[in-house]
Amino acid sequence: MSDKGSVQRGTLYVFSAPSGCGKGTVLKEVRKASSRLVFSVSATTRQPRPGEVDGVDYHFVTKESFNELVRTGGMLEYAIFVDNYYGTPKDRVMSALDSGSDVILEIETAGAMMVKALYPEAVLIFMLPPSVEELKTRLIKRGTDSLEVIDKRVSQAMREISLACNYDYVFVNDRLDEAVQDMLSIMKAARLGVRQNKDLIKGVLKRC
Amino acid sequence: MSDKGSVQRGTLYVFSAPSGCGKGTVLKEVRKASSRLVFSVSATTRQPRPGEVDGVDYHFVTKESFNELVRTGGMLEYAIFVDNYYGTPKDRVMSALDSGSDVILEIETAGAMMVKALYPEAVLIFMLPPSVEELKTRLIKRGTDSLEVIDKRVSQAMREISLACNYDYVFVNDRLDEAVQDMLSIMKAARLGVRQNKDLIKGVLKRC
Repeated sequence: MSDKGSVQRGTLYVFSAPSGCGKGTVLKEVRKASSRLVFSVSATTRQPRPGEVDGVDYHFVTKESFNELVRTGGMLEYAIFVDNYYGTPKDRVMSALDSGSDVILEIETAGAMMVKALYPEAVLIFMLPPSVEELKTRLIKRGTDSLEVIDKRVSQAMREISLACNYDYVFVNDRLDEAVQDMLSIMKAARLGVRQNKDLIKGVLKRC
Repeated sequence: MSDKGSVQRGTLYVFSAPSGCGKGTVLKEVRKASSRLVFSVSATTRQPRPGEVDGVDYHFVTKESFNELVRTGGMLEYAIFVDNYYGTPKDRVMSALDSGSDVILEIETAGAMMVKALYPEAVLIFMLPPSVEELKTRLIKRGTDSLEVIDKRVSQAMREISLACNYDYVFVNDRLDEAVQDMLSIMKAARLGVRQNKDLIKGVLKRC
């Protein structure tokens, strides 16, 4: 970084992948490799499960304060399910970016589109399964869901994959080590995207 | 790559940097690290210099055949100087991309804009000096040009840098090893750009 006098604003990454795609495993490796990466903690109105810690697993909030945040534009994205609300409080993400940290949001496609609209500099990354068939096989092998639930998950995955073309980058999780390298290269390159570096170009021109 | 049945089309990279920025050194290292990368050979109407080999350093062509290529849309980009013409014949680049090779064009900003217009999937990469002042210092240290020529080069560099915002990626050549890593990460990530992978997404959805 040549502009040593000022903090370069961090990059906001949005990461989505269908359920059963190995998102958790890939993110665990990515977390090990990047020290300046902050994982955003979502807010939710659901009750904490045993062992879940407020501020670590989720920010547990009331429906009233959740709605207040939505109403005042304080949510970067949110999803409302029948019983529970989930969302990303904007202020924490923005202050992390301001201080030069990169932030990663692990959210669904609908939320990703909301982030892109509100914060166009965000870099959207979608991880694909090798095929939908392979995804189904993985879900069956996992053995935690009934076939009916698996079919529902596969339909949901197909809906999500068809939105992948609205992301900036896509990669396939076929082999874990390759998937992690793909993700890290994307993150490195994304920081070098011209959208992120207009001030850098101005700075190079100025200092003469 | 999950779509093993078909050859994935290669990626076209356009690489520009002001004179004196260390472009040759960076490209030499990049060439070592990437086996499937083809360096495009330009066509020129100038006479070969001693030691230059036709088809290796340049394709040496007549003004008539150069003009014929331009007239028939056979040049991906070209530049006409007072005495000599330089250009990138389209057919060689396209057949390399078709066969799955990645191709890199080392050209000036004006040519880069022509490529982007004709082939929007191209990935445009601009390498910046740490500062214009530093660039001038490097040119002075090199000791091959008069101060008048150096001033001309610096003005030209500033004109080029001000066009860097039309590229896809920018990075600074401050330390060679970091610059090479930046370039390699950009090239890896660029292959994962969504523009390049619309067919991949379709393929994942289909095979189920």
